[in-house]
Amino acid sequence: MPKHDGTGKRSTRPEPALREVLRVPGGDRVDLTAYDPSAIPAGPADKAAGLAATAALAPRLADLQERLYASSTAGDRRRVLLVLQGMDTSGKGGTVKHVIGQLNPSGCRIHAFKKPTREERSHPFLWRIMKALPGPGEIGIFDRSHYEDVLIARVRELVPRAQLDRRYEQINRFEASLAEEGVTVVKVFLHLSYEEQRERLLERLDNPEKHWKFNPGDIEERALWPAYREAYETALERCNSDEAPWYRVPANRKWYRNWAISKLLLEHLQALDPRYPPGDYDVDACRRRLLAT
Amino acid sequence: MPKHDGTGKRSTRPEPALREVLRVPGGDRVDLTAYDPSAIPAGPADKAAGLAATAALAPRLADLQERLYASSTAGDRRRVLLVLQGMDTSGKGGTVKHVIGQLNPSGCRIHAFKKPTREERSHPFLWRIMKALPGPGEIGIFDRSHYEDVLIARVRELVPRAQLDRRYEQINRFEASLAEEGVTVVKVFLHLSYEEQRERLLERLDNPEKHWKFNPGDIEERALWPAYREAYETALERCNSDEAPWYRVPANRKWYRNWAISKLLLEHLQALDPRYPPGDYDVDACRRRLLAT
Repeated sequence: MPKHDGTGKRSTRPEPALREVLRVPGGDRVDLTAYDPSAIPAGPADKAAGLAATAALAPRLADLQERLYASSTAGDRRRVLLVLQGMDTSGKGGTVKHVIGQLNPSGCRIHAFKKPTREERSHPFLWRIMKALPGPGEIGIFDRSHYEDVLIARVRELVPRAQLDRRYEQINRFEASLAEEGVTVVKVFLHLSYEEQRERLLERLDNPEKHWKFNPGDIEERALWPAYREAYETALERCNSDEAPWYRVPANRKWYRNWAISKLLLEHLQALDPRYPPGDYDVDACRRRLLAT
Repeated sequence: MPKHDGTGKRSTRPEPALREVLRVPGGDRVDLTAYDPSAIPAGPADKAAGLAATAALAPRLADLQERLYASSTAGDRRRVLLVLQGMDTSGKGGTVKHVIGQLNPSGCRIHAFKKPTREERSHPFLWRIMKALPGPGEIGIFDRSHYEDVLIARVRELVPRAQLDRRYEQINRFEASLAEEGVTVVKVFLHLSYEEQRERLLERLDNPEKHWKFNPGDIEERALWPAYREAYETALERCNSDEAPWYRVPANRKWYRNWAISKLLLEHLQALDPRYPPGDYDVDACRRRLLAT
């Protein structure tokens, strides 16, 4: 939490980057039960402040997004890939709506990965992932991702264990190659509590306009909660490199989730520091030619 | 223009639907010089009112978009395809940013068509169009489209005249099939004046942060303005069916363009009247099962 002085104003001590606060530590055993999904580990302290802070980030995000896209038109091959993972109702869709909704949609390439089709299953699991990658200058958003292939695939034993075990290293190689090619990979685990999931599922049942979002299969998945937690812990442990780090975002509070992911995205875009490219033409000559028309 | 009484309030006389006002009349010879690209043929009378009116449409658009998407999860195959065409700087990108930016990005499938690749050229011209169509429940947005194949292709004589002439009917057949398959096709011609284009191109030259948007080739295209106008008139005349109508949106005023396209989209979504589907499960039983977890 940022320090406040008695007047309610922030102290001038610089805040640590949110990416440092939320980064899942590398090398260690990950124990998700050690973290509180309702926590506010940094940033705005309540909902009103959070909504205001998120709104204040929007123009900065939009500006950097435009610069990133502009830069790509001059050959810059960099791009961003935001990977959203989390249990049902953890807010993947809400993040797209509220965080990505702040950006220019023409520069966003969003893909929601569903149960693989027959054709997708006939290929290596990374085939469909590769096809959905963002282009230069774009911000890609994966609502679920290749991690499903070590999450539901592990919990439901969809592939033999030896094949599953190989996938972690395949993912690491894949993500290392992405990073080499100029893709900034930002992986977000939306950390929801078991109790909060129950509340959110009940809300869907209580509101007829949300019935379409509910599937009785969600209850069966929920029954596997401990197995999913273990599968997430393993993925966060085995696929967590400096080139493609995991961030754990407490997701019980929607306003905090939206602020935190906006801020993480902003910090990564700031680190890229994309610039508007100069024109490769004679501006004055073009102006004269235009004025003559 | 809507009638106003002396108090500045709208009269209670119902406004005609904007789709009727902006619809390019079928059957007739289209003469674009008969229309004023700065006109305000209906709706808010000035910029402040236009911005407010557009903002007021946003939640209604978002609500209908969600209903359309929800309905698709229960098998409704309907979808919307917004086709944006217009000369350079007419505001295709601005429309995506400001109009489509009001929607949930996860339900939008945006495609900007560039100069065809070698592979695209090796196929019939509608091949790449087909690949970019929105899925059920989605709103597709084409920034340029198959119409380039009768616009720049006509002006630059990229294909033999006989082949070009066949394309109009091919487009009509294609769009008729789309309509049969549940695609609501909304084609918008962004009508810009020759003078306003000069101003907008000069703005890009005057602002180093916009140099990347300018290409000296834009001046050569501009020199072909009369040929493009004729090509647009021909396309608007020969490919303008009730199933896939053209709307002419005066585009000199950006605020008006944004309002008009928002309103056109709203009217088409309202006509679809998508409904949240009921759940196909026992709600009470699911609630009991959940509460037991």
